[in-house]
Amino acid sequence: MNRADWREAVRAQMPRTRWEHTLRVVDTAKVLAERFGADVEKAETAALLHDYCKFWPVGKMRRMIWDKGLPRDLLEHNTELWHAFVGAEAVREELGVGDDEILNAIRYHTSGRPHMSLLEQVIFVADVIEPGRRYPGVDEIRKLAETDLERALLQSLDNTLRFLIDRCQKVYPLTLAARNDLVDRVHRPNLKEESL
Amino acid sequence: MNRADWREAVRAQMPRTRWEHTLRVVDTAKVLAERFGADVEKAETAALLHDYCKFWPVGKMRRMIWDKGLPRDLLEHNTELWHAFVGAEAVREELGVGDDEILNAIRYHTSGRPHMSLLEQVIFVADVIEPGRRYPGVDEIRKLAETDLERALLQSLDNTLRFLIDRCQKVYPLTLAARNDLVDRVHRPNLKEESL
Repeated sequence: MNRADWREAVRAQMPRTRWEHTLRVVDTAKVLAERFGADVEKAETAALLHDYCKFWPVGKMRRMIWDKGLPRDLLEHNTELWHAFVGAEAVREELGVGDDEILNAIRYHTSGRPHMSLLEQVIFVADVIEPGRRYPGVDEIRKLAETDLERALLQSLDNTLRFLIDRCQKVYPLTLAARNDLVDRVHRPNLKEESL
Repeated sequence: MNRADWREAVRAQMPRTRWEHTLRVVDTAKVLAERFGADVEKAETAALLHDYCKFWPVGKMRRMIWDKGLPRDLLEHNTELWHAFVGAEAVREELGVGDDEILNAIRYHTSGRPHMSLLEQVIFVADVIEPGRRYPGVDEIRKLAETDLERALLQSLDNTLRFLIDRCQKVYPLTLAARNDLVDRVHRPNLKEESL
C-alpha cells in the first residue's frame, strides 16, 4: 500500500468534516516540522493517519485495547483517548505502517506522554492549532507555536487539565506526566545538572 | 510515651504559630470525625501529629526518604509534600505511634491518595479548613464539609491542581490519582456496577 492508498483508506474512515480537519493537520504539521527541524515527510504521514480510528465504534476500540494488550487503564478514562492508541495499532496492521516514530506520534497525539519526541510534539500541536480549531485559548497556543513548540504543547496540556477539572472529569495520568515533564523542560532546562 | 508527652514532643518541633494551627486542626478534626462517624480519638491523635516534621530541614527529610525507602519520586516534586511521608515514619520511630490508620492519615494529609479512608479524609480536610486558614475558595470547602466530606476533599484537590497549573508547578501524580478517584466516588457512585 502506498501513500495514495493511505489517503483513500483514511478518507474512507471518517466523515467529510473530519477529513478536512485531517488535511489541515497535515498542512500545519508540515509547517511546524520545517520550523522546528522535524522530519517533514514523517510529519506529513503521521498527520494524515492520526485520526484513522476517530470514528470507530467504542466497542470495536475496547476489543482492540483488550486484544492487543494496550494500556488497560484507558478503559477507566474518557473514550476520546482511545482512538489514538487504537489508531497506532490499526495503521500498522491495516496499512502496513512500520515506522515507530510515526506510530508513536499517532499513539500519543491525544494523551501526550513524558519525553515526547519532536515529531510527537509536532503532531500533537498541529492537531490542536490547525486553522479550523476554535476554542478559548487557541490563539495563545498558535502564538507560542510560532517560536516555541514545547511551550505551545505545555499550554495546550494545561488548558486540557483546566477544562477537565472545571467539568469534574478525570485526567488521564499520562497526560499529567506529559505536562509535568514539560514543566521541567520549559522552566528548569538544567534539571539534570541540579542536585536533587 | 503517652498523649501528654506527644503534645510536648510536637510543640517542640515547631514555632508557636504552627502549634496554634495544629491545635485548630485537632479541634476541626474532632468536629468532622463526630459529624461523619470517624474514630474521634484517632482523629485527635492524627491531627495532633500531622505536622510533626513540617519544620525539619530539607536535607534531613531527604535522608529519611532515602534511608526509609519512602517513595523516591517525592524527590522530583515539591518539598512541601515531604513532611507528611517523613512525618509518618518519624512519629512511629520517635513517639512510638503504631496505629496504621493514624500513620496513613499523617502520611497522606498533603498529597492525598486513591481510596482514602474516612480518617484520612477527616485529617486532610481539617488541615485545609481550620478556622485560621485564609485563601480563595476556603469558604466553599468549609461549606461542603458541613454535609459532604468527599466533595469538600475533591474541591480542595481541584483547587490545588488549579493553583499549581497557574504557577507552572508540577503536580504530584498521587494527588491526581486521589482526585480522579474522588471524581468517580462523587459523580459515579455506582461505578462498580457499570459495564466498562
